[in-house]
Amino acid sequence: MENSETKTLPKSWAMVGGDGPRSYAQNSSYQRGVLVIVDELMDEGIKETLDFKSPCSDSSNMCTFRIADFGCSAGPNTFLAMEKIMEAVEQKYHAQFQNSPPLEFQVFFNDVTANDFNTLFKTLPSYQKYFAAGVPGTFYGRLFPKSTLHLAYASYSLQWLSKVPEEVVDTRSPAWNKGSIQCSGTAKEVAKAYSAQFKTDMDNFLNARAQEIIGGGLMVIIICGLPDGILMSQTVAGICIELLGSCLIDMATLGVISEEKVDTFNLPLYFSSAKELEEIIKNNEHFCIERLNRLNHPMMKMKVEFHISLYRAVLQGLLEAHFGRDDVDKIFEYFAKKLAENYDSVFNAANHQHVEHFVLLKRNIN
Amino acid sequence: MENSETKTLPKSWAMVGGDGPRSYAQNSSYQRGVLVIVDELMDEGIKETLDFKSPCSDSSNMCTFRIADFGCSAGPNTFLAMEKIMEAVEQKYHAQFQNSPPLEFQVFFNDVTANDFNTLFKTLPSYQKYFAAGVPGTFYGRLFPKSTLHLAYASYSLQWLSKVPEEVVDTRSPAWNKGSIQCSGTAKEVAKAYSAQFKTDMDNFLNARAQEIIGGGLMVIIICGLPDGILMSQTVAGICIELLGSCLIDMATLGVISEEKVDTFNLPLYFSSAKELEEIIKNNEHFCIERLNRLNHPMMKMKVEFHISLYRAVLQGLLEAHFGRDDVDKIFEYFAKKLAENYDSVFNAANHQHVEHFVLLKRNIN
Repeated sequence: MENSETKTLPKSWAMVGGDGPRSYAQNSSYQRGVLVIVDELMDEGIKETLDFKSPCSDSSNMCTFRIADFGCSAGPNTFLAMEKIMEAVEQKYHAQFQNSPPLEFQVFFNDVTANDFNTLFKTLPSYQKYFAAGVPGTFYGRLFPKSTLHLAYASYSLQWLSKVPEEVVDTRSPAWNKGSIQCSGTAKEVAKAYSAQFKTDMDNFLNARAQEIIGGGLMVIIICGLPDGILMSQTVAGICIELLGSCLIDMATLGVISEEKVDTFNLPLYFSSAKELEEIIKNNEHFCIERLNRLNHPMMKMKVEFHISLYRAVLQGLLEAHFGRDDVDKIFEYFAKKLAENYDSVFNAANHQHVEHFVLLKRNIN
Repeated sequence: MENSETKTLPKSWAMVGGDGPRSYAQNSSYQRGVLVIVDELMDEGIKETLDFKSPCSDSSNMCTFRIADFGCSAGPNTFLAMEKIMEAVEQKYHAQFQNSPPLEFQVFFNDVTANDFNTLFKTLPSYQKYFAAGVPGTFYGRLFPKSTLHLAYASYSLQWLSKVPEEVVDTRSPAWNKGSIQCSGTAKEVAKAYSAQFKTDMDNFLNARAQEIIGGGLMVIIICGLPDGILMSQTVAGICIELLGSCLIDMATLGVISEEKVDTFNLPLYFSSAKELEEIIKNNEHFCIERLNRLNHPMMKMKVEFHISLYRAVLQGLLEAHFGRDDVDKIFEYFAKKLAENYDSVFNAANHQHVEHFVLLKRNIN
């Protein structure tokens, strides 16, 4: 049940596994930070929009409340998020049905097959109040049987496209993204190709989840995005990635890495505006938008090493699949050096932070 | 929801992971062989005893048929078994409801947290016709929400106890298993301690599954056992393990490994008779025995290396946790040498093969 769309994405691409000093588990405090910010929004949103039709009864299946985290990676972030969600669901349930037997929670942790599920499972909190399962595979295709999920969650995952749009790495195409490794927003044809891929991917995601989530079920999405009218190239993330791209070009010029490999490398990453996101969801028609908020979660100026570690935990797998293991070490060494040299200008140039969108959706009842 | 009973079992104990030359995936052809033998039994058993109450309907949850493999390890065996089961279920379903929409299968692969789920997920057949999930944790405790499984399967897993009975490694106990690393059957107090642990574990397993399997749901168990009246010490497996035990004693005498470690090492392994197994299930009262067959699956005399690889794939993790990584290599080298020297006598002495029990259970409808 793999989505054929995703075959062009390197198979080995996932956040860095394990729980060592370079792992995503140890280098995702920024992503974890958003939980503090969405805490109240999510809690209120769930309590106000979730509607249990009937209390738990021993003779039916109603006791089980199924939650899935799409793009969970490994490490503590997913566990913390799942706990917050369960807390809100439980409180709402008990408010509706005071004397009913408690819900049983089944939590599914989903990520691509290359994700480090072994570490995920080994670090599951020992006090867990739920039945845990791991689900491997791309969330741009079906992963669960029909109408079996009550709540879906996707945090910092949907800005990752299923693949790099082919045109942007095709030297013969007007959308060829020469000299850049991202959708910086300045080249119109490039932006169009990325935007189209994002729409296709989001549609596939929403259609798959629409099959899997029961009528009235909820979906929480936290996704990297842009304020209206702001280009990727104007944000801290965009400037950092542009700098990484310039490192690759420098290194190719110096003959350290292959020029052809640099020319064919782009990130499958897209930051959308709230308007764009809203339109895709509305056109899809399976879900109703209950909340769409812009989160205030700026990327603070930390030590250079902090930023490098964060980028490495996220990008290492992707770079490794394209450039090979040895080159990745060199790339991050060079990137660290260049970021240190340009550090102040990177943060001063970025007048506009990128933003995260918080979206709460409710599955329509057919 | 971990079972506190299992805390004394080394955490790292699982079949050898990966898919390299020493992996369980590459060294479990014996265990895979049983599938050919049970094929017809299982197919017929499922078709005769499974009873769908109503056809699949889009408005209900009935479309999803949930199967779990308890103690799946990694590698092809579990995939082949799940496919055979699904085939039988599908055929029965279509015979009962010709024109209904097809079932959707969700298959849960369970094993201890130390199991190599990454390899399991990476080797999932690409043509899979089901939604896959991995479930980490001991099957001697609860792993699934109430009444959510339709069919459970456990093959070559339930002969592994949750822990070594404490008495058998306690030098002050009358059940101290001096000079042996297994329940050979000759020392009565030792056998009593092992048998009691087996009963406790099977009860915990059956009670947990009774909560998880819906009324009328099935459970297939394939478990190593003994013919009535035969001792472990009379079987090929028993003689091989006794030889491994004697290797440990030799190596302790030679000062290669710690004597104290040898004295405190026993295998959490128990081969039961059909009678003993039947009694435990009947006393448990949650399941009805639909089939209880003795399988004819002799351990053939193969090259010494084959047997060593098989034992290593199964026992390496357990030995490593007790003796340390370095000693394990030495132990298997010594074992290979001693087995080669005693090869003919091992196979000639074993007049009685151990057997596998095939059990088909149906969850009582409360």
